[in-house]
Amino acid sequence: MRSTTGWQADGPTKLHEVPISRRDLRRDDIAVRVDFCGVCHTDLHAVRGHNGEDVLVPGHEFTGVVIEIGPDVTAFRVGDSVAVGNIVDSCGVCTMCTAGQENFCREFPTLTYGGTDRHDGTTTLGGFSREYVVRDRFVHPLPSGLDPAAAAPLLCAGITVWEPLRALGVGPGTRVAVAGLGGLDAIRLGARDVVVSTDPDSAAASRDRFDVLIDTIPVAHDLAPYLRLVAVDGTLSQVGYLGAVTVETMDLLIGRKKLSSGGSGGLPATTAMLEFCAARGIVADVETLPSARVTEALDRLERGDVRYRFVLDLSDLD
Amino acid sequence: MRSTTGWQADGPTKLHEVPISRRDLRRDDIAVRVDFCGVCHTDLHAVRGHNGEDVLVPGHEFTGVVIEIGPDVTAFRVGDSVAVGNIVDSCGVCTMCTAGQENFCREFPTLTYGGTDRHDGTTTLGGFSREYVVRDRFVHPLPSGLDPAAAAPLLCAGITVWEPLRALGVGPGTRVAVAGLGGLDAIRLGARDVVVSTDPDSAAASRDRFDVLIDTIPVAHDLAPYLRLVAVDGTLSQVGYLGAVTVETMDLLIGRKKLSSGGSGGLPATTAMLEFCAARGIVADVETLPSARVTEALDRLERGDVRYRFVLDLSDLD
Repeated sequence: MRSTTGWQADGPTKLHEVPISRRDLRRDDIAVRVDFCGVCHTDLHAVRGHNGEDVLVPGHEFTGVVIEIGPDVTAFRVGDSVAVGNIVDSCGVCTMCTAGQENFCREFPTLTYGGTDRHDGTTTLGGFSREYVVRDRFVHPLPSGLDPAAAAPLLCAGITVWEPLRALGVGPGTRVAVAGLGGLDAIRLGARDVVVSTDPDSAAASRDRFDVLIDTIPVAHDLAPYLRLVAVDGTLSQVGYLGAVTVETMDLLIGRKKLSSGGSGGLPATTAMLEFCAARGIVADVETLPSARVTEALDRLERGDVRYRFVLDLSDLD
Repeated sequence: MRSTTGWQADGPTKLHEVPISRRDLRRDDIAVRVDFCGVCHTDLHAVRGHNGEDVLVPGHEFTGVVIEIGPDVTAFRVGDSVAVGNIVDSCGVCTMCTAGQENFCREFPTLTYGGTDRHDGTTTLGGFSREYVVRDRFVHPLPSGLDPAAAAPLLCAGITVWEPLRALGVGPGTRVAVAGLGGLDAIRLGARDVVVSTDPDSAAASRDRFDVLIDTIPVAHDLAPYLRLVAVDGTLSQVGYLGAVTVETMDLLIGRKKLSSGGSGGLPATTAMLEFCAARGIVADVETLPSARVTEALDRLERGDVRYRFVLDLSDLD
């Protein structure tokens, strides 16, 4: 076994530094030195719901450098900059895997943390650690030119937004809205206009306006006011909330609107997204903290006190 | 006023023959002799929910012959075979109307019965009658070659199924399923295969199989087993049930599936649908009854005892 260090939840509120064992490299494994790992809402949910029964080391969007490779690994070399997202293995043979939709693997993909390794049955431990051992197919080259801290959230938050944009054919001329972003921030980030959903006049003026509405709101909410903003034959894609959703059929019927949901992506889409971001210099707006401040990061994320993503710098674990 | 005869509900169970007044023709009005009118589930709902407070004459999918035209009518002549669906007027100036989606008119379209006429404020009375007066724009030429009895249901049931097929781009190679049809009937109607949704093996073998699933089930039901049959990036389009629908986000997320809903269509789409049906000899499978048997038709429809649509022959009202 290999030894490293990481941040383990010891209950729903705090994480503490612990020694972590990583498996010895299999023939197609890569050992990655984790440099930066984003802090996702999923991490917050996992920690807050942690009852101590299993070992929890969160983190599923990270960048780093290859430090060792297994004998069958040909696509990477020691020293390569790489990125890993929220899945680290899948069956590889089902119709979803062979179609490059490993995220929909019929046997369910192995999650980066809290999953079960398909070979040794151990619980996977996440990227809030200094080293991660991962099957080569699930490692992405990090394109040069992308800041490794600001690129880390692309591996989960980024691909989650990318996938509906790609699947729904968004391109020049498509009218896209993002719900749950906040008006002032939206303008700063390049939005042309802001619709205040709680202002009846503002909402009414934008009725049936958008071909695609990406709904990033992370809690249960009434979809009706947002469906009203979707154009005829348009789609509301939920990417922020998991759980049961109730809609009135008439809210879909009037305008033949569609409700969809997205999260994560397959390997080819993730590679395409990284290349797209590299070509256009797109990264996340991040606030980088030493990993020792992970508990503070989770507390502030819970209060919505971050624009937009905390990224942990794991170098303090050396 | 013009005088005709129709079938009026006198409570939730029976209809009786009554004299009906129709408005004198406005400049853009057409008087249609109603020959055949389909019996839709909506008619059944309207009758069963009728409390006697307003006058109810059902019927919103009918064919007939032009018997008189207003002075501004240029597209039709006396003697023309025509068809009328479930809307008979709209504002004509909103973005929906100008886009040919009169069925989504921002001011709500005027329904063929139980609606409120936009000029005189009267309640519209439907096609279970021998004559109907209707604005010319909402009258469709009935293509020659289509049996007028079997074509009547195209104006509601037909366009309701046509619209999602068109909007979702169904064409050669698209894998389409219809839920709620019944296996034996499906094969007779040309289906290649039948999936028995209550048979786990049958359903499992067709997981992620269909690009478009048209759900015609007319009552509240769990969508999850049907969503599992939808392919990646595919759509389940509900056309049979109106009401609140609850789905688990994960049932949409796994496979990036979409939920949509349809009903009715705009004027250009209805014309296109009729032309498509005429070119291919497509009509509904109907059982035609003298209109005097309308109560029996509703009772049998309620029991599901019809393959597939009752059509009333209104000539017995002469």
